[in-house]
Amino acid sequence: MTVKNAFYAQSGGVTAVINASACGVIETARQHPDKIGNVLAGKNGIIGALTEELIDTSQESDAAIAGLRSTPSGAFGSCRYKLKSLEANRREYERLIEVFKAHDIGYFFYNGGGDSADTCFKISQLSESLGYPLQAIHVPKTVDNDLPITDTCPGFGSVAKYIAVSALEASFDVRSMAKTSTKIFVLEVMGRHAGWIAAAGGLLEDHDIPVVVLFPEIEFEQEKFLANVKAKVEQYGFCTIVVSEGCHWPDGKFLAEQGTRDAFGHAQLGGAAPVVANMIKEALGYKFHWAVADYLQRAARHLASKTDVEQAYASGKAAVEYALAGHNSIMPTIVRTANSPYAWEIGKADLKDVANVEKFMPRDFISEDGYGITAACKEYLYPLIEGEDYPAYERGMPKYVTLKNILVPKRVATEFEVK
Amino acid sequence: MTVKNAFYAQSGGVTAVINASACGVIETARQHPDKIGNVLAGKNGIIGALTEELIDTSQESDAAIAGLRSTPSGAFGSCRYKLKSLEANRREYERLIEVFKAHDIGYFFYNGGGDSADTCFKISQLSESLGYPLQAIHVPKTVDNDLPITDTCPGFGSVAKYIAVSALEASFDVRSMAKTSTKIFVLEVMGRHAGWIAAAGGLLEDHDIPVVVLFPEIEFEQEKFLANVKAKVEQYGFCTIVVSEGCHWPDGKFLAEQGTRDAFGHAQLGGAAPVVANMIKEALGYKFHWAVADYLQRAARHLASKTDVEQAYASGKAAVEYALAGHNSIMPTIVRTANSPYAWEIGKADLKDVANVEKFMPRDFISEDGYGITAACKEYLYPLIEGEDYPAYERGMPKYVTLKNILVPKRVATEFEVK
Repeated sequence: MTVKNAFYAQSGGVTAVINASACGVIETARQHPDKIGNVLAGKNGIIGALTEELIDTSQESDAAIAGLRSTPSGAFGSCRYKLKSLEANRREYERLIEVFKAHDIGYFFYNGGGDSADTCFKISQLSESLGYPLQAIHVPKTVDNDLPITDTCPGFGSVAKYIAVSALEASFDVRSMAKTSTKIFVLEVMGRHAGWIAAAGGLLEDHDIPVVVLFPEIEFEQEKFLANVKAKVEQYGFCTIVVSEGCHWPDGKFLAEQGTRDAFGHAQLGGAAPVVANMIKEALGYKFHWAVADYLQRAARHLASKTDVEQAYASGKAAVEYALAGHNSIMPTIVRTANSPYAWEIGKADLKDVANVEKFMPRDFISEDGYGITAACKEYLYPLIEGEDYPAYERGMPKYVTLKNILVPKRVATEFEVK
Repeated sequence: MTVKNAFYAQSGGVTAVINASACGVIETARQHPDKIGNVLAGKNGIIGALTEELIDTSQESDAAIAGLRSTPSGAFGSCRYKLKSLEANRREYERLIEVFKAHDIGYFFYNGGGDSADTCFKISQLSESLGYPLQAIHVPKTVDNDLPITDTCPGFGSVAKYIAVSALEASFDVRSMAKTSTKIFVLEVMGRHAGWIAAAGGLLEDHDIPVVVLFPEIEFEQEKFLANVKAKVEQYGFCTIVVSEGCHWPDGKFLAEQGTRDAFGHAQLGGAAPVVANMIKEALGYKFHWAVADYLQRAARHLASKTDVEQAYASGKAAVEYALAGHNSIMPTIVRTANSPYAWEIGKADLKDVANVEKFMPRDFISEDGYGITAACKEYLYPLIEGEDYPAYERGMPKYVTLKNILVPKRVATEFEVK
């Protein structure tokens, strides 16, 4: 086996643990110098490959790479850039191959969600259609937990833990104030189409908190919702509402829609919480508070789930090991082998089965009335938020790593403009 | 010294560590059974004294009381209820004395902020004007950090830590995405009049994050602000903005004003972040994300500052010890005796000097341009966020305590209606 370099890139929205996957990839690659030369990371994701801005990770110390395990965000930069089909933009793929050839890259590790799995799948087909040998492995990452086949996606467990803990703490707060002041607390969480993150709010039921969860999978019905909130306030004196940013009216319009769209054409959301809070105030007169967690939830490495960190690292490690074992066009998966006590192992899925498939909450994970989660969902969720994995602190602040991110010299004569 | 019962109540917005002060009060009182009989806690704050709903803390186990140290919110319930002056509503004060007499209460511990210090001061005057011996001690608590004399207020250090860490994490996130996507992250934080919480965002400068802080102490100037943001994005590629809910235009109107007011007549705020984000989008075209932390910030016991927890406990403990030493009409204070290494001790302030005095950020803590903090401010802040004090976890969730909160039988024949 000849020595080849590897390319690694982070894609889409970053998470609290995507760098733990990067750590798994790079540390494992460093253990196989006989097969993998250098790991070149795409500066700002796949765009870095197109523009030949390749970060030389060999210039980062072992300590810095180890530090990635407990550093949130994407250490090499990420992007929301979806490659078109080979037919629609052949030039992009040819450019990638040109850059990979010039830097002797034989392994392509792409760390992202559903759109990235699709890109990775397309690239995995290149070696055939463009005649360049390349093993493309997708490393799963998404807070939305919407990738198929894998039991969970690295990134999700930590967000779920953050939302469950934060909503519990805020619920204790509103419970303290409810007699004479705030009776309603609304927390808006991420999740455009899949309600996995919102589902974490359903765990509050086990802590005697009256909670209403609004899922994107369930069409919003105003009268039914208000009646549910009213009943809870009358029984408990207060109510917490966890609303997914993807919660929508029967006509499909988001409660939160701001009217702007991102590069993938997805509506950019934010603002369901004040909509819901004001709706309750108007109909029922209850004083409210609301919060929009936004980036705080997916960046909250300070409260990461230990299970999630371990699975993120293991996914990166497995990607390299699968590549070295000769695999192509696959994604390492998390396979749950037991629930109690929880046990898991790494498996693999063919990218053709992963690309463009979105995993929603199964209906039997959502309670009959549509506002909570079932015992089956709780059994699914608890292991994923289990364990704490705190970063080190210095002067009261977490010691997060910022890499040097030094680029390797360019070898391709032509420039490439990313549009 | 005869044995007397003590009354304890939580007032105003609760915090991540007000229960640590309650723990300090109750544990210390339990160490002096020869002087303090039972600690009766006001159900939902001072209202519980007026309505004679007194929680019998002797029915809570030592373990439950110890658990308060790491439980956020107000375990006995709190309220935003300000007693009027003795002249304006003498009946309220007479009712309090009536209830205190009936339950043999000789100590009044009131745990709150500026409004509560005023109430406590008024009650401390009662023993003279109404002829009932009562020692009233105020236990400081406020996330706003706006009480005078004390170096800091228990509750503040934990919020400051939460905001600094959360803003750092979200800034790492936006830095990862900035090349092709989000360039602006706006975090709205609490602080109606004083910018102490927002100031914590200024610490990000020490982590190479371009940050603009918007204080309530500095009138908002749109053009100057936009120019500052633009310069930062051009230099760094992204910018984080930490905006206080109390940030206002030169005419005094809050950026965030929703039009509703709380029981103290304060405007209820929320929504400065989307205002600022959209203003930037419109003027400069940058893609943004925004978050409103709201209750999450003041309830975040999972990320409490160890310094803050210790000071909250020590304040509660000192209140009891001062009372036993014969003091009346005072508040324990935190006295900073050294900066490096940080050292502090408990002191005391006369309530007449505390009531109705609000401590704002000194101008020399805010940078010259009004958008950051000075070295003096950093030297002040760092010790307050120092150290972590994690709660215990079970099944991935913090083990927070919910008390039994059993009321003692009523002894006063008449009812009292709180309006």
